[in-house]
Amino acid sequence: MIIIMKPNASEEAVIKIKQIIEANGLQAHLSKGAEVTIVGVIGDKSKLQGANIELIEGVDKIVNVTESYKLVNKKFHPEDSVITVGTAKIGPGHFTMMAGPCAIENRDMLLETAAAVKKAGAQFLRGGAYKPRTSPYAFQGLEEEGLKYMKEAREATGLNIICEATSLRALETAVKYVDMIQIGARNMQNFELLKEAGRAGVPVLLKRGLCATIDEWLNAAEYIASEGNPNIVLCERGIRTYETATRNTLDISAVPVIRSKSHLPIIIDPSHATGVRAYIEPISKAALAVGADGLIVEVHPCPSCALSDGPQSLTFDQFDHMMNELEPYAKLSGRVSS
Amino acid sequence: MIIIMKPNASEEAVIKIKQIIEANGLQAHLSKGAEVTIVGVIGDKSKLQGANIELIEGVDKIVNVTESYKLVNKKFHPEDSVITVGTAKIGPGHFTMMAGPCAIENRDMLLETAAAVKKAGAQFLRGGAYKPRTSPYAFQGLEEEGLKYMKEAREATGLNIICEATSLRALETAVKYVDMIQIGARNMQNFELLKEAGRAGVPVLLKRGLCATIDEWLNAAEYIASEGNPNIVLCERGIRTYETATRNTLDISAVPVIRSKSHLPIIIDPSHATGVRAYIEPISKAALAVGADGLIVEVHPCPSCALSDGPQSLTFDQFDHMMNELEPYAKLSGRVSS
Amino acid sequence: MIIIMKPNASEEAVIKIKQIIEANGLQAHLSKGAEVTIVGVIGDKSKLQGANIELIEGVDKIVNVTESYKLVNKKFHPEDSVITVGTAKIGPGHFTMMAGPCAIENRDMLLETAAAVKKAGAQFLRGGAYKPRTSPYAFQGLEEEGLKYMKEAREATGLNIICEATSLRALETAVKYVDMIQIGARNMQNFELLKEAGRAGVPVLLKRGLCATIDEWLNAAEYIASEGNPNIVLCERGIRTYETATRNTLDISAVPVIRSKSHLPIIIDPSHATGVRAYIEPISKAALAVGADGLIVEVHPCPSCALSDGPQSLTFDQFDHMMNELEPYAKLSGRVSS
Amino acid sequence: MIIIMKPNASEEAVIKIKQIIEANGLQAHLSKGAEVTIVGVIGDKSKLQGANIELIEGVDKIVNVTESYKLVNKKFHPEDSVITVGTAKIGPGHFTMMAGPCAIENRDMLLETAAAVKKAGAQFLRGGAYKPRTSPYAFQGLEEEGLKYMKEAREATGLNIICEATSLRALETAVKYVDMIQIGARNMQNFELLKEAGRAGVPVLLKRGLCATIDEWLNAAEYIASEGNPNIVLCERGIRTYETATRNTLDISAVPVIRSKSHLPIIIDPSHATGVRAYIEPISKAALAVGADGLIVEVHPCPSCALSDGPQSLTFDQFDHMMNELEPYAKLSGRVSS
Repeated sequence: MIIIMKPNASEEAVIKIKQIIEANGLQAHLSKGAEVTIVGVIGDKSKLQGANIELIEGVDKIVNVTESYKLVNKKFHPEDSVITVGTAKIGPGHFTMMAGPCAIENRDMLLETAAAVKKAGAQFLRGGAYKPRTSPYAFQGLEEEGLKYMKEAREATGLNIICEATSLRALETAVKYVDMIQIGARNMQNFELLKEAGRAGVPVLLKRGLCATIDEWLNAAEYIASEGNPNIVLCERGIRTYETATRNTLDISAVPVIRSKSHLPIIIDPSHATGVRAYIEPISKAALAVGADGLIVEVHPCPSCALSDGPQSLTFDQFDHMMNELEPYAKLSGRVSS
Repeated sequence: MIIIMKPNASEEAVIKIKQIIEANGLQAHLSKGAEVTIVGVIGDKSKLQGANIELIEGVDKIVNVTESYKLVNKKFHPEDSVITVGTAKIGPGHFTMMAGPCAIENRDMLLETAAAVKKAGAQFLRGGAYKPRTSPYAFQGLEEEGLKYMKEAREATGLNIICEATSLRALETAVKYVDMIQIGARNMQNFELLKEAGRAGVPVLLKRGLCATIDEWLNAAEYIASEGNPNIVLCERGIRTYETATRNTLDISAVPVIRSKSHLPIIIDPSHATGVRAYIEPISKAALAVGADGLIVEVHPCPSCALSDGPQSLTFDQFDHMMNELEPYAKLSGRVSS
Repeated sequence: MIIIMKPNASEEAVIKIKQIIEANGLQAHLSKGAEVTIVGVIGDKSKLQGANIELIEGVDKIVNVTESYKLVNKKFHPEDSVITVGTAKIGPGHFTMMAGPCAIENRDMLLETAAAVKKAGAQFLRGGAYKPRTSPYAFQGLEEEGLKYMKEAREATGLNIICEATSLRALETAVKYVDMIQIGARNMQNFELLKEAGRAGVPVLLKRGLCATIDEWLNAAEYIASEGNPNIVLCERGIRTYETATRNTLDISAVPVIRSKSHLPIIIDPSHATGVRAYIEPISKAALAVGADGLIVEVHPCPSCALSDGPQSLTFDQFDHMMNELEPYAKLSGRVSS
Repeated sequence: MIIIMKPNASEEAVIKIKQIIEANGLQAHLSKGAEVTIVGVIGDKSKLQGANIELIEGVDKIVNVTESYKLVNKKFHPEDSVITVGTAKIGPGHFTMMAGPCAIENRDMLLETAAAVKKAGAQFLRGGAYKPRTSPYAFQGLEEEGLKYMKEAREATGLNIICEATSLRALETAVKYVDMIQIGARNMQNFELLKEAGRAGVPVLLKRGLCATIDEWLNAAEYIASEGNPNIVLCERGIRTYETATRNTLDISAVPVIRSKSHLPIIIDPSHATGVRAYIEPISKAALAVGADGLIVEVHPCPSCALSDGPQSLTFDQFDHMMNELEPYAKLSGRVSS
């Protein structure tokens, strides 16, 4: 931690800062410049929690030098993680495809979709049993009934299954059925849910919040990891910007940024990022090329009949076509479907 | 709802759209322009839920004409609401001040703060018992113990009390103690929590999400209202933008926008909006001048000792000074403290 | 300037950095922490221009301690500036109202508007002779002919006149007519134009760019000041965010931020910030309450006939009403119209 | 254009709108819904310019159905354009690489860089002779001297050359030397410059503004095209968002969006988008995979000695490595270097 003093800070103010730092068991290094004095704090800065250095007379600003996340930080865990979920591996060297409907609407459509995405080469069936919806009057999901259909789909196809948990109650139920829990964008800073997901003992797919920084996202992952669950996969799904031509703005650079800051795998959700079916295939190719570990894509037997997110869902044929198109890109980036 | 066809849409496509609309018990009005045809849908558009019009051959885009929120919509409830909470009234004609520490750190600091803000003229004591924190290693709150101190503070001062509930569990506990529940920015789209807050029978302060649109915010309020709780106050607390000179960017125009779209009261949180103590007083004056119904402000006996948000907290003297400065602005905007 | 080394930076890397700094005539102070080493650079950092410290082996990041703007920086000029423009003074203690049509459409409408805004109490007539328009097919302005009408309006009313210059050519012409030049949001980083405005010897109103940070805005002002023109007034006009309920998002906190970082006066443009006529009066009150030095507002004899920005223009009656409503707010904030 | 009336709009208001539309030589189609009436306007909406429909009694909002850009619109020019610049072709089927230093610092470094990027396979040499810089105290470019070195580099290597023009004066000089003019992000809405570039008879690379929407960007291109210059290539270079881990946020979805809305070619600038050397290669692969027509990349003989943008420049070896890595991606997307 570095403390930058105001240009007109008095000698006494600097001495007082030094004393506070040392009183907390840390060391202070002073550098007096022509315009300003800076104070380097040496030692574990968490000891200074509660000492609001910003408020002390003469202080201009504080610069943090070290990240607050540790367990998910590449600095302390330089090797990239490969996470095992059910029969699949997620991480470098592997290409993971998760596909299925935004919402589970009924048993038939789910089983039909499962068979189709399995045939096309997916490893995971996705499907929403609990749906977070902007309006209270929109379809909210089949809940546990939907989870039962997911389980049935796994038995029928061998696909691993992933479902979003939108509340502690949903989480408690979902862990009985699924191979992987998804924490959605709107819940990325629902800290109770993160902690519970950390204790649940099931791998977690953590979507980036609608306007979360990468730093906040990794701190959210740290909430899960700090409860003893290291099996976390990150998912970039677009951030909110002023541009309205797409539903969100996919931050594709998040892939190399995460790669440099964390050892966790990262996949991309082109369906929510763009909101437009025609853009999903080109964006999926880009995701593989940039180094993402996989994709999560919405597929529906009849997108124009879907109860949720139809405009961004692929038909079976479109998904099958896309899987074929993606194959050479996966190969080029040294990945095998697994 | 209006359906805009593509320039090259066929006659058959237009006829098909018309048939789908009519098959759902609605009427379709066609306007054929030089470049494009548009189709006006007349009737209750919720009947079309599940018919993904965007995906039908020849459709370019959909424009919604009516809002999805109804109960909190000014169109259907033109008179501004004044909400009664404990001994206070919040809404036009009134000026409500909520003040207190970001986090309840211990009994003494809370009672001391309560006495100070009461003396300066506040009607509400705020204080966090459950703290949502970016890092899992930061102070997380005293939980129920904190709520007990809040209750004691109410008994000692007569102030109404407000606390944030960050989860269903926290909500269940908090309603036993407080006059008003706060739903924080990070939980604005925690729909389970919103519904439960709607059922809890306690007035709710609903903060705007970090990057929520006004439309999403009013839909979140609709979640609460649709469960039978009309006692909702909105709170603008700054949105996330690219500017880093302040913690967030206060969207002060949200006050007249909300006034034109909803009958709910709206207050402003200058502490979280700016994150800088020196900016709180000028922003508070602006809040009153623009027509906000009140303020929620962080006050701490010793900001430089605070465990959370110290840099944006006012001392007792600063708060007292601000209350005096605000008085003529409240009077000018026709409001009485109550 | 502070250099933060990577956790694994070698001893040699640190020594090399130190040598580079010293070779450039500066001093280096080292602080070795448990995790990282930081290097404070003491002296004039512009000497290091071209030494891309970020790229040197072992460097993690650079933190700038001092601002690159000097002449407009409050640190070196602590007293707030009051700028004299024609017969007016702009700055603390004064309340300046600039009003007029977005675009000068013809002689009659301009003279009529000038008379109306003068009568209502404005000190400046604004009017666009050169219009930056998103589409090449929209009305682009009367150019020099419009400037002649502005001059005529000044003679008729005694109002000071302000016009936007959108290019070097427009600037060259406009300085012959106006009391103050406006640099618009789209040209805030048109550095050629800024430099020329600095040399033109006419006071400048510098609008904030659509997505400019406050730091970039002050650096743009520095361009003007560094050419010898200290008569600069800043104008906050809303920034671009994801929210679409208003045309832009007014960053009202920019007023206290600028007040703390610069000695230059700052006014607010509620017309472009909101884009909605009904929001202009409440936002103008807020502008005065927060401490802005004035306002620039669009007024039109017949907003529904305007060639540009009609929806955000006030009628004469609305402007007159607003001036009356603003008076007590100006008085409360210790300002006189002048 | 569609006019949406307020729920409480009177019969008279609707009739008045209809009359205004018809008085302007257009047709009005009315659709009366349960809640609101909508009015479809049929005919050339530019006839309504100046009739501020939004302001007419009873009008709620206006929805534009057609884009204001025509010449660059795919609707009226469905076939993708391939632009010839010097010896190169830019557009589908081709992969164009532009590379060189951010700023031309001296003759030697430019000629050395030209030789290196030519050898590695680039078709264009980029180099800044006029540099837009945030601070007036930063290096501003060699101006015409730099252009002469560029010309010399073309003669030595056969590379096509591209330079940014930051003002009318710079444009006038640059067209005498270069094969292609670049309009930079800060000048995307410098409309005088756009028009002049349209008249200059030289192909133009039009970068997206820092916070420009895709619609504004295509309207900026329309300014150039409307002056008779159809040889325009778009360049996505990242937009400004709240995320600070990268210099800007690359909007990679802009590639398929532009492909669907315009026939113009589009390339990507990974250097400015990310600002970090290590991210340039993965982002470049993604650019090819998503369907971009080329790249513009910063290369410098000694990035740690660069006067501008060193941290995002590649060394010769890094560039050479990247060109080899990109080759199979270009092949996969059906492109040849030309």
